[in-house]
Amino acid sequence: MRIVCLAGGIGGARFLRGLRAAAPDAELTVVVNTGDDITMYGLRICPDLDTVMYTLGGGIDEVRGWGRQDETFHAREELQAYDVPTAWFGLGDRDLATHLVRRQMMDAGYPLSQVTEALCARWQPGARLLPMTDDRVETHVRVRTATGERVVHFQEWWVRHRAALPATAIVAVGAQDATPAPGVLEAVAAADLVLLPPSNPVVSIGTVLQVPGIADALAAKPVVGLSPIVGGAPVRGMADACLTAIGVETSAEAVGRHYGARSDGGLLDGWLVDTADAGVAVPGVEVRAVPLLMRDAETTTQMARDALRLAADLSGG
Amino acid sequence: MRIVCLAGGIGGARFLRGLRAAAPDAELTVVVNTGDDITMYGLRICPDLDTVMYTLGGGIDEVRGWGRQDETFHAREELQAYDVPTAWFGLGDRDLATHLVRRQMMDAGYPLSQVTEALCARWQPGARLLPMTDDRVETHVRVRTATGERVVHFQEWWVRHRAALPATAIVAVGAQDATPAPGVLEAVAAADLVLLPPSNPVVSIGTVLQVPGIADALAAKPVVGLSPIVGGAPVRGMADACLTAIGVETSAEAVGRHYGARSDGGLLDGWLVDTADAGVAVPGVEVRAVPLLMRDAETTTQMARDALRLAADLSGG
Repeated sequence: MRIVCLAGGIGGARFLRGLRAAAPDAELTVVVNTGDDITMYGLRICPDLDTVMYTLGGGIDEVRGWGRQDETFHAREELQAYDVPTAWFGLGDRDLATHLVRRQMMDAGYPLSQVTEALCARWQPGARLLPMTDDRVETHVRVRTATGERVVHFQEWWVRHRAALPATAIVAVGAQDATPAPGVLEAVAAADLVLLPPSNPVVSIGTVLQVPGIADALAAKPVVGLSPIVGGAPVRGMADACLTAIGVETSAEAVGRHYGARSDGGLLDGWLVDTADAGVAVPGVEVRAVPLLMRDAETTTQMARDALRLAADLSGG
Repeated sequence: MRIVCLAGGIGGARFLRGLRAAAPDAELTVVVNTGDDITMYGLRICPDLDTVMYTLGGGIDEVRGWGRQDETFHAREELQAYDVPTAWFGLGDRDLATHLVRRQMMDAGYPLSQVTEALCARWQPGARLLPMTDDRVETHVRVRTATGERVVHFQEWWVRHRAALPATAIVAVGAQDATPAPGVLEAVAAADLVLLPPSNPVVSIGTVLQVPGIADALAAKPVVGLSPIVGGAPVRGMADACLTAIGVETSAEAVGRHYGARSDGGLLDGWLVDTADAGVAVPGVEVRAVPLLMRDAETTTQMARDALRLAADLSGG
């Protein structure tokens, strides 16, 4: 079976690990959000790609959910000692090596998709990781501050301010003019099934879908999604702040309706919500309630099995 | 008193620390070799500038003589795990922050001299550190290998091969077209004295002198040098390999003669050699034998005092 997943960072990465365990023989392609990417100190940092790669490759810090295990932050301490204004970013010493290799390869002319492939030659994630695009896309957020509105990079809002500044707009700059990375549309076209992991529906999945051509390609495929909202709150991260910014309620039902039914010009055929949200209805979409908290490897694998089960049921399999 | 020193890395930096102790009230300007600089992973690495800055600023690893104290090498370990061909370079995690700041500033349009000034705002080296030039100069070495001759960056020869490959030529690429960094010629013009620390006479001092205008400016000033060769061998490093490459014998006398007498179109008024080399003669140059091993702070400070004493005697002071 060929499966394509769209994915953001931590939530998506953990789900993918469960999916790999649930369907070890599936040929898995992950189309990863790059709207979170940021250039700092001349390095191109791709948080979602790296989180997925480290998680599937066994190098992730399991507690934080991002960055490398056995990590140190000595370079960052020094950046703080230099009084660098961007030292709020959590740049680990081991993680830095990934950005150095990426920078070296990009300087040599390689697009991000080929850099990702080269990095994965070490990590062996057991899935094909593709950036959504090789073009530069950066999510910017308009925030309200005490002194008026200003626009900041997503990372500044998310990491530095922990999404505490109210967002009045979220824009994936460059997305409209971006082209899907080589292999993305081909993978979707060849897929038996598309899964939307419980990633952020606005700044992760939503950004991938803004790259022209990707949403259209999905329209030809069965799509099952998993709600990142459980009992009216995000399972992790601050997805509520993103949903509020685009005028969507923070609930499993509202996110399901935001994605919409594929039969009605939306995305979804099936929508998994948590048992706490049993009874949710999304017109035109088969909704099923199962445990959606990724407590450990087993519960996560079971979630993936449930998603595959729903897909199979929808196709009469 | 205003003193200008030309300097390379470890030997020069240690001597400068002694000089600062010997002449705490002197206004000290250091013109630092940048021919060792190298671009790796998009970062501009300036080993000599950083060694002098860390040494005078109290951040150096005293045992290695280069890089930061309390250093870790996790990023480098990861570069090795990625099988990066340049992972032989000793890039420490704390040290990396310096290169990240430099890169950020250079991307913003600042020349190396201004970057250096900004970095020194943190380190407070107690001396003005100037790169010899803001232009790109890189020392390349033609080496003889089992399969023929090839040209490598100085760092590859020095660090990776520990200068073990015989060098048949050493060329500071770009030096002939370089301009002294802002402040260099002004500092020399205002100096009461120029000192040549026991830095590598070929790839450190020799490279600085290749930048058009610097040697001419020195011709108007009293110059005292300290031999980096003691008893026919370099005190540290592999200066002998460099001297051999340019056809100069590895001896205190030969290096003194290589620099030559200022009165005869060379550089020197005075030349300090080690007591082991007492009896050395350099025509037209006042040679004095004193202990030249920088065993500790006191012996190093005494070396600086001896250099200042020789200069004072030469000027009849």
